Amino acid sequence: MPPLLIKSVWKDHDLVDIFINEHYFQKIAKSISLDEVPKNTRVIDGAEKAIIPPFYNAHTHAAMTLLRGYADDMSLFKWLSEYIWPLEAKLTREDVYWGSRLAILEMIKSGTVFFSDMYWNREETIRAVIEMGVRATIGVTFAENLMSPKSIEDNFDFLEKNAACHERIQLAVMPHAVYTVGDVLWRRCAETAQRLGLVLHTHLAETTEEVENCIQKTGKTPVQYLDSLGVLNQNVVLAHAIHLTPEDIDILQKRDVTLVHNPSSNMKLSSGKMNISALMKAGIPIALGTDGASSNNNLDMREEMKFAALLAKVDGGPELLSADEVFHMATVQGSRAYQVNAGLIEEGKLADAILLDLNNERLIPNHHLVSNWVYAADARCIDKVICHGQILMENKSVENEIEILERVKKFAAKN
Amino acid sequence: MPPLLIKSVWKDHDLVDIFINEHYFQKIAKSISLDEVPKNTRVIDGAEKAIIPPFYNAHTHAAMTLLRGYADDMSLFKWLSEYIWPLEAKLTREDVYWGSRLAILEMIKSGTVFFSDMYWNREETIRAVIEMGVRATIGVTFAENLMSPKSIEDNFDFLEKNAACHERIQLAVMPHAVYTVGDVLWRRCAETAQRLGLVLHTHLAETTEEVENCIQKTGKTPVQYLDSLGVLNQNVVLAHAIHLTPEDIDILQKRDVTLVHNPSSNMKLSSGKMNISALMKAGIPIALGTDGASSNNNLDMREEMKFAALLAKVDGGPELLSADEVFHMATVQGSRAYQVNAGLIEEGKLADAILLDLNNERLIPNHHLVSNWVYAADARCIDKVICHGQILMENKSVENEIEILERVKKFAAKN
Repeated sequence: MPPLLIKSVWKDHDLVDIFINEHYFQKIAKSISLDEVPKNTRVIDGAEKAIIPPFYNAHTHAAMTLLRGYADDMSLFKWLSEYIWPLEAKLTREDVYWGSRLAILEMIKSGTVFFSDMYWNREETIRAVIEMGVRATIGVTFAENLMSPKSIEDNFDFLEKNAACHERIQLAVMPHAVYTVGDVLWRRCAETAQRLGLVLHTHLAETTEEVENCIQKTGKTPVQYLDSLGVLNQNVVLAHAIHLTPEDIDILQKRDVTLVHNPSSNMKLSSGKMNISALMKAGIPIALGTDGASSNNNLDMREEMKFAALLAKVDGGPELLSADEVFHMATVQGSRAYQVNAGLIEEGKLADAILLDLNNERLIPNHHLVSNWVYAADARCIDKVICHGQILMENKSVENEIEILERVKKFAAKN
Repeated sequence: MPPLLIKSVWKDHDLVDIFINEHYFQKIAKSISLDEVPKNTRVIDGAEKAIIPPFYNAHTHAAMTLLRGYADDMSLFKWLSEYIWPLEAKLTREDVYWGSRLAILEMIKSGTVFFSDMYWNREETIRAVIEMGVRATIGVTFAENLMSPKSIEDNFDFLEKNAACHERIQLAVMPHAVYTVGDVLWRRCAETAQRLGLVLHTHLAETTEEVENCIQKTGKTPVQYLDSLGVLNQNVVLAHAIHLTPEDIDILQKRDVTLVHNPSSNMKLSSGKMNISALMKAGIPIALGTDGASSNNNLDMREEMKFAALLAKVDGGPELLSADEVFHMATVQGSRAYQVNAGLIEEGKLADAILLDLNNERLIPNHHLVSNWVYAADARCIDKVICHGQILMENKSVENEIEILERVKKFAAKN
């Protein structure tokens, strides 16, 4: 992988040169001459381009791309029990591998270089991530309703042996939810995550039903229940976090957890609306996620930013969640939550970036680039996607694209 | 413009051949041989493509693309009075022409072949529509707060002389709103539209403020007020229609008007949510519109479909507004409302179509094409756009694209 020198590219309101070496932004300056960089450096013309941070998708289930459009427009219970679970039960390891590759292909093409994944057959997703050049936090998923005691032990074994997984991959401990994991296992998950320095990620307070059942069973809301078990701390990332009491919000703030907003999925499944206003007032960090493709039905973080901003405004007023704020959620907050030293185009940060084509009609006129990116753009505006100092997409194409599409079409034909 | 023969393209669940001649779908059959069609027919390979109806954007302000991203994330009043109106006051006819062309470019690239436009300097938008090959209903706009008595008379004069405007263009009478047009002018607009057989289109019940002011002034809701003036009938198309009483809904149903849903704009400006559930129960036809690019901030009807469906579901349950229903709004209902004999791929309909690329990753797996189109796709999935029997986009490009972009960039640089 040769070093990269991007010449004369727009960064915020300036034209700069950017030198990328050994996976990092090594130098950003008004002008960097060819004499300063190694001979094998690839020079990229930044004319009519802008460089911005790419997306960090803070909650998804990658291989569920296989179920895209398989069942829509129905109640959560019917959707899961009659369609999603029966088809998932038939998924082979190979299916998960190709579903993960399809997801990564889709993410790269829409400017996402990192995702946090909660699914089964994690080895297959790890293989896909390594091969395709993106970053990921891969979940070791726990759900007592679906797993034997032996496979739970295998999970912990896997965590102990693979905590330092790969330079672009971290593992995370992912108990599925308060209704699928019991006290004892929750405590053990939390202890393991803390000891190994890993993120703990779960679904929380996604539906009113979940909250009511938790109160009935434990006398506590999901947040208060997890807090009573000692689970919550700054390495915890909670997806959804829709149905919260003011006391819950106080606890989340004190424990310094990060939340993940998944507006498309929450809207499509009619789960409810995250209380952005109260959470922002409390200063609780919020990242952004697409959730899985079967409840979204894509993994397009640009579209997700627009959904987040507009959903906040519809009830909360037009000033709530500005373009800049939601862009921050989708970039800085996502990478920070998962301990990736990225999310900004700055010297010393990992070299992840999007080059935007300023000649795409959606970015014209260019009164405010971030507004255009959040509210007006689409993936056609992306000229190049860079992750870990390597170009993953250019000329609209990604390596081995056709093979991935053909394999997934075969999957669809047999199901 | 030669006839077109599209060979072996997916239509619904069948592979068909489609012959397009003299602006219409002339024949759709399992197989059409080259002997059956004129020698100058252009043959298009439909392999790995699906043909679907394109979009009919039922409410927009095309030239407001010039104001894309100029002001966001603020209250409606501040947005209009401090930003939008002062910049609009500076727009020249030439600006409106290039702004309209940018809008049409953006619409073609995202699969829209028709739009209903309410703006100023209509001659410029008409010129842009004729040159670029799309269809439009062009508004003759009335707003007493902004117009001299002379320009109002000029408007009526223009309507009388140009009622039969162009084979791809119809005029419509467009009084701006109940708060900008008085009784006498409302009655005259309605009489003129009826006599000339034109659509009457207006903004209605967009904000609670509008409704409260109307009640204070007239003792009636906006719907009841317009009904008392005899304005409402089956040739009336009302944009927004958010804040309605049950009595309003009864009246709209009886008068057989069509409504236009603009979910992105309504969310972004925090105007409120259309009551899709009640309106669908009442059987009132609803079309879909993007509104102007300064409150959206794009003209992407695919994205608008997803916003419509997900906004309906978030409060109304996951079954409300299915993918097929929202696709019907964006195609059949939009063309029907504006009296365009299109919106379906059927013999005898005007030849408007999108060819979708079934090898785009967003359309894979193809469990349900309409679901993929509504929830997962983006404009990259579009292979060709056809309007009035002519190909307006292929190989991702539209005629004179670069000139349009350069002209609008110059506009942005001076403002």
